[in-house]
Amino acid sequence: MVSPEIYHEVDVTLPNTTYRILIGRHLLQNAAPLLDAVAGRQVLIVTNETIAPFYLEGVRQIFKGLQCDVVILPDGEAHKTQLSVSTIHEILIAHNHHRDTTLIALGGGVIGDLTGFAASTYQRGVDYIQLPTTLLAAVDASIGGKTAINYPGAKNVVGCFHQPKAVFIDIACFDTLALREFQAGFAEVIKYALLSGDLTLPSKPLPELIAQCCEIKARMIASDVTDKAGTRALLNLGHTFAHALEAYTHYERWLHGEAVAIGLYYAARLSEMKQQLDASIVKKLDDLLAHHGLPRRIPTDISLPVLYELMRKDKKATMNQVPFVLMKDLGRCYLDNTVTLQDIKKMMA
Amino acid sequence: MVSPEIYHEVDVTLPNTTYRILIGRHLLQNAAPLLDAVAGRQVLIVTNETIAPFYLEGVRQIFKGLQCDVVILPDGEAHKTQLSVSTIHEILIAHNHHRDTTLIALGGGVIGDLTGFAASTYQRGVDYIQLPTTLLAAVDASIGGKTAINYPGAKNVVGCFHQPKAVFIDIACFDTLALREFQAGFAEVIKYALLSGDLTLPSKPLPELIAQCCEIKARMIASDVTDKAGTRALLNLGHTFAHALEAYTHYERWLHGEAVAIGLYYAARLSEMKQQLDASIVKKLDDLLAHHGLPRRIPTDISLPVLYELMRKDKKATMNQVPFVLMKDLGRCYLDNTVTLQDIKKMMA
Repeated sequence: MVSPEIYHEVDVTLPNTTYRILIGRHLLQNAAPLLDAVAGRQVLIVTNETIAPFYLEGVRQIFKGLQCDVVILPDGEAHKTQLSVSTIHEILIAHNHHRDTTLIALGGGVIGDLTGFAASTYQRGVDYIQLPTTLLAAVDASIGGKTAINYPGAKNVVGCFHQPKAVFIDIACFDTLALREFQAGFAEVIKYALLSGDLTLPSKPLPELIAQCCEIKARMIASDVTDKAGTRALLNLGHTFAHALEAYTHYERWLHGEAVAIGLYYAARLSEMKQQLDASIVKKLDDLLAHHGLPRRIPTDISLPVLYELMRKDKKATMNQVPFVLMKDLGRCYLDNTVTLQDIKKMMA
Repeated sequence: MVSPEIYHEVDVTLPNTTYRILIGRHLLQNAAPLLDAVAGRQVLIVTNETIAPFYLEGVRQIFKGLQCDVVILPDGEAHKTQLSVSTIHEILIAHNHHRDTTLIALGGGVIGDLTGFAASTYQRGVDYIQLPTTLLAAVDASIGGKTAINYPGAKNVVGCFHQPKAVFIDIACFDTLALREFQAGFAEVIKYALLSGDLTLPSKPLPELIAQCCEIKARMIASDVTDKAGTRALLNLGHTFAHALEAYTHYERWLHGEAVAIGLYYAARLSEMKQQLDASIVKKLDDLLAHHGLPRRIPTDISLPVLYELMRKDKKATMNQVPFVLMKDLGRCYLDNTVTLQDIKKMMA
């Protein structure tokens, strides 16, 4: 057993609940803090086929004194479906899990969203703990209690708000992360850089960078837990394009972070066109995304009218409006409901 | 158009929300109060094959100025499943329903629970309105925001807490209710009679009886919205037996109310055995249930050990305890975790 090093603690303080994000190295090899976060005598570890060989045995060892069951799902956004949630529920029922059980999400954003949704609806809500194993999940998906599944053509369209009991970010996990996955995580980091106005964020040391993203997100959700006040909506910078691109390509062509990277670039381009955002900022963003190996352009085989139709199914869309987060300047984002298909065509021309 | 007569209004006042229950006649033929409860420009009416021929067209007329879509599900507790919820979600997605849509539950408890659960998870929560068409839904299921679906062997095991925007109880609906359905509703009425200690409740005029049940329930949930403090658990009087009997027989043999009637009787018998509840009360209850045409005995083909195993899957069960609501006296219920299979066998002997 290796001693854990804890680098940062970020507390998420919401109106009805508080939880802690621990950021460190070798957290997953140390039992005490994880066991402390479990209220009952039962846990269910939810993970996927890619992650299981690396970390499952270690985490299972931590819970060996409890009833510890496991679900191993197939990997990938295409499996963030009701079918996966039903699999989790069936295993909870078959093994007689009670209201004081705790679900353990061991994986990336897909596992976190699925596990959180399954936990929010099993017996009308049980605890869950996030153990994000990807950078993207660490800086974004594992915090804030948005849980969801996809339907064909509609990303995250079904879900709940259900906050985790705790989040443990073990940066040792990123040592085994595929380069493409690691790079995809930087798309969300760059989103936080744009939201906060600090373009140096992505070049900071990993623990500090993660802690800062978590702090920005914790601040933004605290005033708007259920996404009604408008603050939380700004976290969707780049995501109107991203969700539509993912749905368009059946969640198979891009990792979520890659789609976000494309979305961030076009959010900046729209901002330049409609809000006179300085062209030099668009250029800097384009370079920053490129530096992290991320895509920035919509391929020509994507039909813009079809893409726009998918945007109209976005959760934040209303009858005739598609909501975009645009930038007046670095660190000054706002929600814009006036972007038309014509605007997008003009920008792409 | 017939003028509505409004007999009673009951306000449900909870920590984070308030809503009104209107009890009257011909409420479903009058547009204004229903339209007032709809926030956006879209509604989805969810109903079933039995109810639709009677009331669907009338309700659809009320919403003719809005985008009004319809789902007609098969009738019965056996269809309170994830499949039905997915059907609702798919129709919402296909017709582009937004966050400000309102789902309209037109039917009994099954339709209410399904619609409420679909509303609680579509886009992380949209509005819904309860139009209960059965006595059972009117006095119990449509109030309190417990939404759920069944899994094989586990009743209501997946769901959310999600309060309706409003409840309209049109007692004209009960004119078309099958006698068996009407009688089943009285099981929950008799439950409220036992909880409140007023055994005259079931013989009161229908509007008054419904209003009183709603008031008792509203009071009990106000202090315990998410079923954690113990007050709300008392509403489960008779339901530990009922849920297990329903799961045992695949939700096909008894209506929910009929299973509750059997459960109430045995809750009283257990109370007599363990709490010296007066035998005359057990007798009065037995007569009251019989007077309303309700079953009271567990048939001999039901295996008690199998039934007890199903009780251990009850949502309120913990590792080694099955929770029963027992009575010390009329109006004095409490949660008892000490009932064993041996107790049940002894009682049945």
